[in-house]
Amino acid sequence: MSFIITHKDKKTKARIGILKTKSGNIETPFFMPVATKAAVKHISSEDLSSLGAKAIISNTFILHLSPGEKLIKKLGGIKKFMNFSGINATDSGGFQMYSPSVYLYSNERGVMFKNPFNGDKLLITPEKDMKIQLDLGSDIAMCLDEMPLLSFSREKIKKAVERTADWARRCKAYHEQIQKNKEKHKRQLLFGITQGGIYLDLRKFSAGLLKEFDFDGYAIGGLALGETKKQEYNAIKAHKLIIPESKPCYLMGSGNPAEILKAISLGVDMFDSRFPTQNARRGTLFTCKGRIRIFNKKNKASKEPIDKTCKCFVCRNYSKAYIAHLLKHEEGTGLHLATFHNLYFMQNLISSAKTAIKKGKFSEFKKRAGIFYEK
Amino acid sequence: MSFIITHKDKKTKARIGILKTKSGNIETPFFMPVATKAAVKHISSEDLSSLGAKAIISNTFILHLSPGEKLIKKLGGIKKFMNFSGINATDSGGFQMYSPSVYLYSNERGVMFKNPFNGDKLLITPEKDMKIQLDLGSDIAMCLDEMPLLSFSREKIKKAVERTADWARRCKAYHEQIQKNKEKHKRQLLFGITQGGIYLDLRKFSAGLLKEFDFDGYAIGGLALGETKKQEYNAIKAHKLIIPESKPCYLMGSGNPAEILKAISLGVDMFDSRFPTQNARRGTLFTCKGRIRIFNKKNKASKEPIDKTCKCFVCRNYSKAYIAHLLKHEEGTGLHLATFHNLYFMQNLISSAKTAIKKGKFSEFKKRAGIFYEK
Repeated sequence: MSFIITHKDKKTKARIGILKTKSGNIETPFFMPVATKAAVKHISSEDLSSLGAKAIISNTFILHLSPGEKLIKKLGGIKKFMNFSGINATDSGGFQMYSPSVYLYSNERGVMFKNPFNGDKLLITPEKDMKIQLDLGSDIAMCLDEMPLLSFSREKIKKAVERTADWARRCKAYHEQIQKNKEKHKRQLLFGITQGGIYLDLRKFSAGLLKEFDFDGYAIGGLALGETKKQEYNAIKAHKLIIPESKPCYLMGSGNPAEILKAISLGVDMFDSRFPTQNARRGTLFTCKGRIRIFNKKNKASKEPIDKTCKCFVCRNYSKAYIAHLLKHEEGTGLHLATFHNLYFMQNLISSAKTAIKKGKFSEFKKRAGIFYEK
Repeated sequence: MSFIITHKDKKTKARIGILKTKSGNIETPFFMPVATKAAVKHISSEDLSSLGAKAIISNTFILHLSPGEKLIKKLGGIKKFMNFSGINATDSGGFQMYSPSVYLYSNERGVMFKNPFNGDKLLITPEKDMKIQLDLGSDIAMCLDEMPLLSFSREKIKKAVERTADWARRCKAYHEQIQKNKEKHKRQLLFGITQGGIYLDLRKFSAGLLKEFDFDGYAIGGLALGETKKQEYNAIKAHKLIIPESKPCYLMGSGNPAEILKAISLGVDMFDSRFPTQNARRGTLFTCKGRIRIFNKKNKASKEPIDKTCKCFVCRNYSKAYIAHLLKHEEGTGLHLATFHNLYFMQNLISSAKTAIKKGKFSEFKKRAGIFYEK
């Protein structure tokens, strides 16, 4: 078993667990900053350690394009390449089907992408995706999935669910085949991704199809795309109804603090999102009283830190006025400070949530904190 | 006296000194990374401390435009604004006469700039420049100077020298007037800037005019603009012939390692330049064997650090392949790592030079190191 549940909340489905990977164990729930190109934007691996991020997620398809998985493999794998001591996950690239600049079409064979650097067509099959992720050497690989847009018809989403299941079967078979001679503790984990948009029966259908393949964990894909919160939470519940409690549950793409607390209460164990990093770069900063816009007039001359209660080095040393000045001029230092703070905030949020779960006080914590984070 | 010489090299004019400022003492020679907008690009004040930079230089005119000296004063001065524990110097903005986007013309009253944010005309007089720098609260202020281009006629350069001297007189008078009731150890230092292009008689003429005003230090302006090294060194010598040895000597704008070693041997005590930071961003990295282009094919798959002998955290933890990958994609993390390394290299170079001076072995050090740094 690569996942052990150590604490369960009594009032909600929140839980604490240990996920075992070839790079070591990690306590769940955890949040993964996004390191698309093998670096979190404006954040070094030393920064990640110092802000407490124990796992990150990179993008298989993007790294395949540049610098290429062969190079990363030659250099000792992604972990060594970027000198990150924590857990490296890789997303399959299915999400890139959202990028018209690289996505051409998909069929039963796989996804046809366009290489944005030279215009070449590039077929990514489930098998090829697995091979790339194994070469990258990440600790957690994700199946190639077909991610439907929210606006797609029910019929089209159902077809995406079926194709995703077929690809998941092929991913699993190929992944197992390649790793069969590896010692168990050196194996890369593989997670399936369920789809189904906001249709709860399709979500259950998808989970049911994928359950059979006994993945190391299950991700909920195709959310955080503009659906309502109620739709999102119901989709999570539908997924969780089918997937065994013993499997780690990963909600892809959600990074809003209030959503994360809610999802934890529904039994979600893992998160990733551009939300904190992208917001930071755009001047939206997280505080225990909700998000603030740093460009708001009242921050221009403020001596106060971003969040008075925050213990990160940015809040201990810099004023809102300074951060606002630097971000206004798009200074790299400002992007760094703002990103560091938002990521620290996320780590601290999850850390506080875990403490509350362990103390049996998660509901109270969620209620108290959530009010502010909804903003 | 704000400057005390503690060691003199026997074979050259190299020396070690202590410059006393209101923020504390600093050993010379030292190199100031450029923090134009109150931040060194991609480097936090914590990074500056960790890489050993004890002084930085910001730009008066640019900070006047945004966020404005009044705001910085209100927030406790530039030192507090950017949380830098070392010495803050401010350049007057005379150098901006090189920027056609902001420079309109100059006359005996001062420099007429154009505000690039709103197009307004903006007259910066010597008195106004002093007032801004006093409000910014830097430790070392620079006089407003008229910086001629290398291509200007001898006659035009002579006029710039005369105007620079007149402005220096006005700067000194105003600066002294404002600070007259301040305790000595709380006063901002003021440096004069000599001009004269590559004309040695004009350099001496300029130094002679400025010598009379007994500034706390003297900078050599208008160099590092494309003149030959011989012309640069001769101009330094001409300046030093006239300005008393007891005054700190600041060569503005030179950041090439070989030039710095040569200038130290001529008795220069202070340096600033965009050279290490700008080069880093463009992929030119400093090593003890000369500069390397990170985008060179042979670095693409290199497991080696930028410089095997360098002890900075970048060289201890990251390969050239990783830095090349990040810089290729203009990732902020790559800009940060490359900039950190180049600045660390500069600090280490000057630190080694100081050790050599103290041991009486500066000439040998300069000869040995200079061969590589010329590259």
